[in-house]
Amino acid sequence: MADLMEAVTALAKRRGIAFQSSEIYGGLRSSWDYGPLGTELKRNVRDQWWRSTVQLRDDVVGLEAAVIMSRKVWEASGHLEVFTDPLVECLNCHQRFRADHLPGFHSPQSGHEEDETTLDMEQPPKCPNCGNTTFTDPRNFNLMFKTTMGPIEDAEHEVYLRPETAQGMFVDFPTVQQVSRKKVPFGIAQIGRSFRNEITPGNFIYRLREFEQMEMEFFCAPGSDEEWHEYWIAERMRWWTDLGLRDENLRLREHDPDELSHYSKRTVDIEYRFPFTDWGELEGIANRTDFDLKAHETASGEDLTYFDQEKETRYHPFVIEPAAGVDRGVLAFLLDAYREEDAPSAKGGTEKRTYLALDRRLAPTKVAVLPLSRNDRLTPEARRVFDLVKTEWVCDFDDAGSIGRRYRRQDEVGTPFCVTVDFDSLEDSQVTVRERDSMQQARLPIDGLVTYLAERL
Amino acid sequence: MADLMEAVTALAKRRGIAFQSSEIYGGLRSSWDYGPLGTELKRNVRDQWWRSTVQLRDDVVGLEAAVIMSRKVWEASGHLEVFTDPLVECLNCHQRFRADHLPGFHSPQSGHEEDETTLDMEQPPKCPNCGNTTFTDPRNFNLMFKTTMGPIEDAEHEVYLRPETAQGMFVDFPTVQQVSRKKVPFGIAQIGRSFRNEITPGNFIYRLREFEQMEMEFFCAPGSDEEWHEYWIAERMRWWTDLGLRDENLRLREHDPDELSHYSKRTVDIEYRFPFTDWGELEGIANRTDFDLKAHETASGEDLTYFDQEKETRYHPFVIEPAAGVDRGVLAFLLDAYREEDAPSAKGGTEKRTYLALDRRLAPTKVAVLPLSRNDRLTPEARRVFDLVKTEWVCDFDDAGSIGRRYRRQDEVGTPFCVTVDFDSLEDSQVTVRERDSMQQARLPIDGLVTYLAERL
Repeated sequence: MADLMEAVTALAKRRGIAFQSSEIYGGLRSSWDYGPLGTELKRNVRDQWWRSTVQLRDDVVGLEAAVIMSRKVWEASGHLEVFTDPLVECLNCHQRFRADHLPGFHSPQSGHEEDETTLDMEQPPKCPNCGNTTFTDPRNFNLMFKTTMGPIEDAEHEVYLRPETAQGMFVDFPTVQQVSRKKVPFGIAQIGRSFRNEITPGNFIYRLREFEQMEMEFFCAPGSDEEWHEYWIAERMRWWTDLGLRDENLRLREHDPDELSHYSKRTVDIEYRFPFTDWGELEGIANRTDFDLKAHETASGEDLTYFDQEKETRYHPFVIEPAAGVDRGVLAFLLDAYREEDAPSAKGGTEKRTYLALDRRLAPTKVAVLPLSRNDRLTPEARRVFDLVKTEWVCDFDDAGSIGRRYRRQDEVGTPFCVTVDFDSLEDSQVTVRERDSMQQARLPIDGLVTYLAERL
Repeated sequence: MADLMEAVTALAKRRGIAFQSSEIYGGLRSSWDYGPLGTELKRNVRDQWWRSTVQLRDDVVGLEAAVIMSRKVWEASGHLEVFTDPLVECLNCHQRFRADHLPGFHSPQSGHEEDETTLDMEQPPKCPNCGNTTFTDPRNFNLMFKTTMGPIEDAEHEVYLRPETAQGMFVDFPTVQQVSRKKVPFGIAQIGRSFRNEITPGNFIYRLREFEQMEMEFFCAPGSDEEWHEYWIAERMRWWTDLGLRDENLRLREHDPDELSHYSKRTVDIEYRFPFTDWGELEGIANRTDFDLKAHETASGEDLTYFDQEKETRYHPFVIEPAAGVDRGVLAFLLDAYREEDAPSAKGGTEKRTYLALDRRLAPTKVAVLPLSRNDRLTPEARRVFDLVKTEWVCDFDDAGSIGRRYRRQDEVGTPFCVTVDFDSLEDSQVTVRERDSMQQARLPIDGLVTYLAERL
């Protein structure tokens, strides 16, 4: 395919999977809305994660914490000080950029207040907007959105939108441990929106200012942390491939020591072969050590240790954190599932067929019911079939346009099965079921339809 | 019960259903975190709403829009101007209050910039904090949280956290209508967080600064709006009662003309008998007319009309909006399900039994598996039973403490079924299933357990 990213973005726009927020007002490049199919796809990604991470496990429990937490949380966690990117302004056109994204600036990874971004004098940076080569000195720009809580607007009432959901799990650790009566090792998982005031968002839903995270903090005994880290790297890799991402599009990447976040002892990214960046982060799996619990203990004065009754020891648990992005997950699943092929045309010869080979658990619509044509006799019978299946799965009913065109519409949004009701159906109470990837068709009695589909969905 | 609200709040705290955000830092009164059981309960409320409102209907589609929208959205919608509460400050202690919550101020409902809050001179207001009776003049305090987007902090880059999810549906109406190929009448539904900088939050999870909404905008032809309004009032009332809220705790209340929001022609609230306020809003069902679409058309210059092909007419659809709060829903379900009764004690006589008679679809845990005692023979067998049921439902495994105590623990969080594995189970491969409300027990083969539970869950 010439440009996979372009094809998927165009499909997403055409079918309303995702499009720019506030489009009628010119759009916000930094945040995107999910339309009907995108919403179901996103729901499915979240539900699969929740089911495998929380509901099917005995050692992970759920949490839904507030987006706006006490400002003290971000002082203690270090985000207020070091959650920054190096910002420069072009002295000619006054556009602002992330220095570490401009060739010519030598910059350490964000999150290191102490390290300075410096100019590489042999290859001076150039403004991507106007071509000018003079910039302000880089300054550390904090990525947290700031607002004021309560009816008094002053510094004391300043609060932040969370840049990660993780701090909810740290701050609530003693309460959740107590009420769930879980013993270490155990994890606390959360799905929710986070907000980062990125200097340069972009690439469709890859880098957003408002995004959704699926994070889990796994609390374990010091000394067992490295083993649990390996366990969760393997487990998370398995999750992505089990849901259909191809091995050749995934890899693990170890963070360089100077690239590690301020809280991390070791971080391994699961990277996906995103077309615009070759390899890009899909999920980060960090060993956050006991950094956060100790930091909050010091700042709050509350005891955040855990007492191991069997070993009769008290300690600050170490924390392994698999942190995935829902939006990046959606993008990776779309890219990986996108297929173009030559298929037999109804008019003879071949024609291009586009389809999404999404895993059935992720497909936004599971079954489409299609009367062969819009017709006083076929439509009521097709409605009857639709009513049968729609209580079981998310279904679509479509009677507009030629049957070939409707198959193509369902293919390109990844609907695994189309059920066609034709004139014979009125006589023999049978329908035709067409499978998306193989395009193979089976004729079967309406009575057996739900069972047939249930075995395959 | 002496004080139902106190009992439910204490239960919620004790079992970690919900507790104050950032508790180790003293807590934020205005936002709450949901622990493991609260998270599952909230998920179930959302899923039930989504299933009945979107997935089981052919005329409603889903949307997930960004929290931070273009500021122009809030200029056009009127929120920037009139989404205010009247704020007064005590001249003695400088605490701030909502004037319309202090007896002695005569105030119209919030949302009417043009109306002024005035002092009722016959009954002067008193500061709830210090008793002083002199206040500043009321001023209109806008409830939207303000922040700055992008690397430049100036007025031009100010944006707001959405105070309602609804505007996403209005702004995206043309895109969603086109990609979903729905014909009016149809609805767009969204579940998501909204933010209101309330002057006085309170009453546990009743009035929060950060809360979750389940909103649906139903677009219909002008003239059919009043009929659709009645339809949705009945439909939403049915939803709450179907999920277990008792008729005597629900009522409909018509908004007075001077109380209507600026966009509404008629609003009917579904009120619940919350103990702290007698009757309080659970859900509002408004006829928003064509106010929002017209306002956005004027402000954006985009055509937001709909062309009815059958009638060959073009119009701005009217909008019926059922808007419910997830958090208030959770609170109502907890209050309504709370039961205390005398039950036979294991030691003879009776003892107080507390249980949540939650609808099975809402119960956070569906099944608890309990070995009669923690034991080398019983525990592995109970684990085997647990593995059987946990792939089907959210389950708990509990082997700590006496069996009576474990039943009580499951009762008070509303677990519909407890499955007990005893020494006989090792011989006859049978288990005892106890139903929550009746406390009746049935003995049945492990082989038939999943089928037995499936028929009842």
